[in-house]
Amino acid sequence: MNGVLPPSGPTDGEASGGLTPEFIASVYDALDQIDTETAKELTGSLHWSDLADLLEGLTDERRETLVEALRIEFPANVLSELDESVRERVVDQLGLSEVASAVADLETDDAINIVEELEEHEQLEVLEALPESYRTLIEEGLSYPEDSAGRLMQRSTVAMPSHWTVGQAIDYMRETDGLPHDFYDIFLVDPRHRPIGVVPLGRILRTRRHVALNAVMSSELKIIPVNMDQEEVAFQFRQRDLISAPVVDGVGRLVGVITVDDIVDVIHEEHEEDIMRLGGVGEEDDLFAAVLDTMRSRFPWLLIHLVTAVIAAGVISLFASTIEELVALAILMPIVAAMGGTASVQTLTVAVRAIAMRQLTPANALRTIGKEAVVGLLNGTVFAIFIGLVSYVWFDNLALSGVLAMAIVINFFVAGLSGSALPVLIQKLGFDPAVASSAFLTSITDVVGFYVFLGLASVLLL
Amino acid sequence: MNGVLPPSGPTDGEASGGLTPEFIASVYDALDQIDTETAKELTGSLHWSDLADLLEGLTDERRETLVEALRIEFPANVLSELDESVRERVVDQLGLSEVASAVADLETDDAINIVEELEEHEQLEVLEALPESYRTLIEEGLSYPEDSAGRLMQRSTVAMPSHWTVGQAIDYMRETDGLPHDFYDIFLVDPRHRPIGVVPLGRILRTRRHVALNAVMSSELKIIPVNMDQEEVAFQFRQRDLISAPVVDGVGRLVGVITVDDIVDVIHEEHEEDIMRLGGVGEEDDLFAAVLDTMRSRFPWLLIHLVTAVIAAGVISLFASTIEELVALAILMPIVAAMGGTASVQTLTVAVRAIAMRQLTPANALRTIGKEAVVGLLNGTVFAIFIGLVSYVWFDNLALSGVLAMAIVINFFVAGLSGSALPVLIQKLGFDPAVASSAFLTSITDVVGFYVFLGLASVLLL
Repeated sequence: MNGVLPPSGPTDGEASGGLTPEFIASVYDALDQIDTETAKELTGSLHWSDLADLLEGLTDERRETLVEALRIEFPANVLSELDESVRERVVDQLGLSEVASAVADLETDDAINIVEELEEHEQLEVLEALPESYRTLIEEGLSYPEDSAGRLMQRSTVAMPSHWTVGQAIDYMRETDGLPHDFYDIFLVDPRHRPIGVVPLGRILRTRRHVALNAVMSSELKIIPVNMDQEEVAFQFRQRDLISAPVVDGVGRLVGVITVDDIVDVIHEEHEEDIMRLGGVGEEDDLFAAVLDTMRSRFPWLLIHLVTAVIAAGVISLFASTIEELVALAILMPIVAAMGGTASVQTLTVAVRAIAMRQLTPANALRTIGKEAVVGLLNGTVFAIFIGLVSYVWFDNLALSGVLAMAIVINFFVAGLSGSALPVLIQKLGFDPAVASSAFLTSITDVVGFYVFLGLASVLLL
Repeated sequence: MNGVLPPSGPTDGEASGGLTPEFIASVYDALDQIDTETAKELTGSLHWSDLADLLEGLTDERRETLVEALRIEFPANVLSELDESVRERVVDQLGLSEVASAVADLETDDAINIVEELEEHEQLEVLEALPESYRTLIEEGLSYPEDSAGRLMQRSTVAMPSHWTVGQAIDYMRETDGLPHDFYDIFLVDPRHRPIGVVPLGRILRTRRHVALNAVMSSELKIIPVNMDQEEVAFQFRQRDLISAPVVDGVGRLVGVITVDDIVDVIHEEHEEDIMRLGGVGEEDDLFAAVLDTMRSRFPWLLIHLVTAVIAAGVISLFASTIEELVALAILMPIVAAMGGTASVQTLTVAVRAIAMRQLTPANALRTIGKEAVVGLLNGTVFAIFIGLVSYVWFDNLALSGVLAMAIVINFFVAGLSGSALPVLIQKLGFDPAVASSAFLTSITDVVGFYVFLGLASVLLL
């Protein structure tokens, strides 16, 4: 870990696959002159994920011009790759019939990914425009809970009976149309279509034609129930280094397959959830959201913090007369609160991360909380000495420095306890531990810090 | 996004693949009675990643007993899967000769992963115990920069000339020993061993034997230079939905292949870096680190925050006489600081996330900073009205409420500006934007909040 990003910035040629600053500048030029022909020509050879990145980075006017230029053959994959808030605007601009024809070109999982984000009446309109059999698959997909394996899976699978030989398998694959575009494993099924084994393609290729599939299959199969939460699915993929996994319905029949490229997206999504919650921001809040949406997504956390900040102020007001007598207290009290806040955010970060990685479990929760409390006490003691010395030099008041040091130790201890215990508790209640955001935790150390410092001062100093 | 974790906890059977609470309890029992036979029997059938999880969750005594029980045939993969701080202790216990023989069983990338974490003299000892040819591969791998593609790649590749037919390719794979255990793509190379195309295995299997490989290959190949930073490699995999990618040396020759399972680990690692830095914690800080290591990893951030907290206290001390005259200022000033802090952490979180996702680029940085400043102003105005009303009811002092409201608006504005501009600036200087941790940013809003509020009060109220 050297911690330094690669020197090539995100718009650098090699770095972002074709989106060089010069390229971007020439696209901007073409769009500003409403030269749709040139814009179309320039962007025609871009990979769809680069085109999506390009669209995301444009101002509204430029993006609208480019979408208009590409309207006739708008690439379906670009839609599924776009950031949600940008996609919404592109969908509005394209109109639902264009969207429907784009969706029809996609694999079921990508199609569901787009359709699920539409308003209900838009969904109906798009679904109606799809071919019957395809529509049924999409509707089935939408019937599974949000963020479940059923939404992630792709419906077309490569499955065959286990008594076939390698030669039969190869012939079947050569002769069958409609196999998925990319696949990495062949799933073997019993007569009821329940998966019983897997053969990676590499193994098929290294085995002679006459060998039976069940002689080379692995029966150590990780089977994903269709209702499994996507976070759990991602955990299984990571744990087992899976490339693809079979998805089964309630009676164990193979209904689809999840591939690792979708899992990579899920991992990013779950990370985003963690980091956003810890920062006290709604998930809809991203760079491309409109100002009003951004305000709305941040409002609830600010409101909660307003309440806690007023409580902290209330605590201070209990000691108004103490402060009037010794104004140094007002000067020093933010140090107690701020140091405790930093310590609690540190603890919270480690705990939330450990819960996400399944390292912090009920089995070791008490041990962890204990360790964090000890770390809090020790670091608290070290910093109490530092801060005590600083304040002694500053105010030349030994008793004041002693009170300050005591308050620091206590607040660090509380920070270690609450920073680790709170996320564990929230997880136990069935919620995401990251909702114990840093804003919330620092409120605790604010209140405790002010109360302990001013309280001790009023008892011991005056 | 329902935001609720799956009800099954991490130690639940289905959830963590065999690590049921009952199972764990029986392992604990066996270990506590030093019944190594039972412990060995119980853990014998575990997948190596589950065994690694189990080891991580044990207390030091129990873990030592289990490692002793498994010593003779300690599974190599478990070592590479273990969390760093636990692995260090297991390596110490096993001794270097056991570690060397375990390492010899691994693919080069996993082996490098273990060897690179050892002390230098340990590295030498382990390397010397390896077979000559294998050792050379490992040493080559270690010669590439940390966190580069060269460290991630596995050295054995499946490469063949593009003029071969599908039939020749299949025969070659059937007849050649020493192919990688898992592979998903065949890379086609020119006579100088430079990759010129790729054929996914699925396509090989669906093509008749007489067809030439270059007729079915994709030449849209994402080639990874051996020195590319792993974060950039992960970006390319995600952008292109890659399963594997060829790695080339300085003159373009194929030297290895990176597979997506390693990328999944990189994504987790990079995310951990982000979240830890934002929380002001060192990366070595995890649940399993010893108390002293944990203290040490948190110390620098606390020290930085101590300095900034003392600066904030210094700002307050400038207005000591103002506070003495109107103690309500001491009561209300933490509200200004706390609300500004929350707003700046929100902005920072969104900005750091956007930079990591390459959505925030030099091309749209100014626009983003402008938007965040506007959001700050607007949210600041809303909350200024709230807080102004609360304080008016509380202190019945209109001028005081007005000053408070003004300070809130200004501090929110500064929070939006600094929360977005600072990470952009840090990125531009070539560092990780997440080092602008929340602790650092809240210091800014503390100082600005106190200065503006108390400054305005001293000018306007007294």
